[in-house]
Amino acid sequence: MEAYLDNSATTKVFENVKNIMVETMTKDYGNPSSMHMRGVEAERYIRQSAKTIADILKVEEKEIIFTSGGTESNNLAVLGAAMANRRSGMHIITTAVEHASVHSPMEFLEEQGFRVTCLGVDALGVISLEELEHAICEDTILISVMYVNNEIGSVMPIDGIADIIRRKKPDILFHVDAIQAFGKFEIYPKRQHIDLLSVSGHKIHGPKGIGFLYIRDKCKIKPVLFGGGQQKGLRSGTENVPGIAGLGVAAKEIYENLPEKRVRLQELKNYLIGELQQIENVKVNTQMGNETAPHIVNASFVGVRSEVLLHSLEERNVFVSAGSACSTNKQTVSATLKGIGLSNEETESAIRFSFSIFTTREEIDYALDMIRELLPKLRLYTRKK
Amino acid sequence: MEAYLDNSATTKVFENVKNIMVETMTKDYGNPSSMHMRGVEAERYIRQSAKTIADILKVEEKEIIFTSGGTESNNLAVLGAAMANRRSGMHIITTAVEHASVHSPMEFLEEQGFRVTCLGVDALGVISLEELEHAICEDTILISVMYVNNEIGSVMPIDGIADIIRRKKPDILFHVDAIQAFGKFEIYPKRQHIDLLSVSGHKIHGPKGIGFLYIRDKCKIKPVLFGGGQQKGLRSGTENVPGIAGLGVAAKEIYENLPEKRVRLQELKNYLIGELQQIENVKVNTQMGNETAPHIVNASFVGVRSEVLLHSLEERNVFVSAGSACSTNKQTVSATLKGIGLSNEETESAIRFSFSIFTTREEIDYALDMIRELLPKLRLYTRKK
Repeated sequence: MEAYLDNSATTKVFENVKNIMVETMTKDYGNPSSMHMRGVEAERYIRQSAKTIADILKVEEKEIIFTSGGTESNNLAVLGAAMANRRSGMHIITTAVEHASVHSPMEFLEEQGFRVTCLGVDALGVISLEELEHAICEDTILISVMYVNNEIGSVMPIDGIADIIRRKKPDILFHVDAIQAFGKFEIYPKRQHIDLLSVSGHKIHGPKGIGFLYIRDKCKIKPVLFGGGQQKGLRSGTENVPGIAGLGVAAKEIYENLPEKRVRLQELKNYLIGELQQIENVKVNTQMGNETAPHIVNASFVGVRSEVLLHSLEERNVFVSAGSACSTNKQTVSATLKGIGLSNEETESAIRFSFSIFTTREEIDYALDMIRELLPKLRLYTRKK
Repeated sequence: MEAYLDNSATTKVFENVKNIMVETMTKDYGNPSSMHMRGVEAERYIRQSAKTIADILKVEEKEIIFTSGGTESNNLAVLGAAMANRRSGMHIITTAVEHASVHSPMEFLEEQGFRVTCLGVDALGVISLEELEHAICEDTILISVMYVNNEIGSVMPIDGIADIIRRKKPDILFHVDAIQAFGKFEIYPKRQHIDLLSVSGHKIHGPKGIGFLYIRDKCKIKPVLFGGGQQKGLRSGTENVPGIAGLGVAAKEIYENLPEKRVRLQELKNYLIGELQQIENVKVNTQMGNETAPHIVNASFVGVRSEVLLHSLEERNVFVSAGSACSTNKQTVSATLKGIGLSNEETESAIRFSFSIFTTREEIDYALDMIRELLPKLRLYTRKK
């Protein structure tokens, strides 16, 4: 038996994703910039993928810019929006729990003279709309907030933020890192007044090395990579046609019957949370119910360090995450877990379980069995030390 | 019959490249940042690829940084080196014939206050070493010159440039865009005193959306994308494991028996040039012989505009390029063709033929037949207009 419960780190590609990638690598392998038929064919795969994604988001094809993944999407959104609009102001608002690919560009912008306000989160991992409203000033040009927290699965009040922006200062650009949300929620940037939306391929059974940024038409943004002028100059470089085609196929497949998929995931999540809550000295850090993401459960196994439990579980073919696994495996204290008020002991013993649509009840039962078996032994060992 | 003679735009992936990509997308699909076995397996593919490439270049594994392709490699080299060393000086030397992914970052740097000297080329498409030497000043921190010209195949005096740097100002960083050279020439950055070397995957039957930058150990460079700190902080973002693995396999395969492969390509090149020279009013813009790249032939079909000949040829399944096809298909005047002194008529009628190791004599004969057949008709049409 095996339980891969690290789907927020990465997922297996869909069969159809693999198929279209093989097709575009071996048969229709043209360069979209070539003027002949082979180039036109390649270009067609890009347009088809952009159309698929645009239809899902109810936006225009031309508002989709393909990037090399979530990190580049977030960099392009944050750096690109800040640099293009610095004359209108140099104040940005974000949160203390953003992914490093938002947080690090913010640090870079601070070096460039921008002022960044970093909002804290409450015990549920969400920001206060009131605080956000107070933070907005004359100088604010950009607000960047993640949709779903990658460590504990809490959902930020995206619509509430958009309302405040429209009411207080409608020219502020609103960027949403939707890397853990796309494929789990219906997201409609136009209706939700989102200007920039980042998505990654490999979190939704699409390829690694590909992602996209939705950029609202007429939204002023500067490129971060310069060159041949592909994708309206916003992202130069020969397009990764197989990756783009694969991403389109993955997006289509993941959004088919999404409500059913979500209900199934939510049931799995609630089941896992319910079972974990019955184990002694386990603190579940993810809220039960439909207000949080359906695929992430974080829990602290007090008395056993995360890495110890993680490696013991992997010996039994149960794969989970200690941190967010979206950054290098160096141990750094999680801003999210600290932010929601966990003690050091709870932070250091936190484990993330993350599901995909392939995750089964059997896998979760197997993982629970292994945890129940291992935990007393590992705790005994820890106490003895 | 079909003749794909646009291999400098992009190539078909090797069978083994496809195979390892499928394996890493469907079986060993872990995130290299995950701490468990699935992450370790994924990491192993990256190390294997870096080792393969490092062995080919005779450098260290840790000096290979994977990027999303040639454009990002060139951006990282030029912007990264300039930004990291601006306190030592703000003067950069490059050439008038560089690819847009070097040229455009240079324009960006000029906006940031850098001074850029752009060297012209002679009739063979190469810079003058004397001029380069004169251009070096106290302030010079970076010299960026391409190895092989992507439009006409001329080879720049890389070793001569390195000699001058060592003699006049050894702390100048030397960046070489080797995107058209890697897989065609033996390149040894250490011996050749190259500090930064850019390579793209899809020009050597590897995947699109992947490339690497060789960065000499201790060479000071700043990242252009910020985030999770992957690849020693020089290139954040979940590594594109299938792309990286595919690139390693492609590099290995292309460098197997390279001298034989090159001789074969050179024979094809000399043959095509010889035949083209016998057609009335055709000016071959690429030098015969072993001093130019073995896979690129550029020729002007005076009296017929490039696009007209290109589209007539594609109707016969002969695929060639009008410009370099590495930028969007907007028609812009080629700096290279202007630089080597072509007349407007010659520039506007230029066609690039580019080979891969799969190119056959039969394909070239077929293309020549089609050209001989089409050219008189198209010229007649042009004259009538």
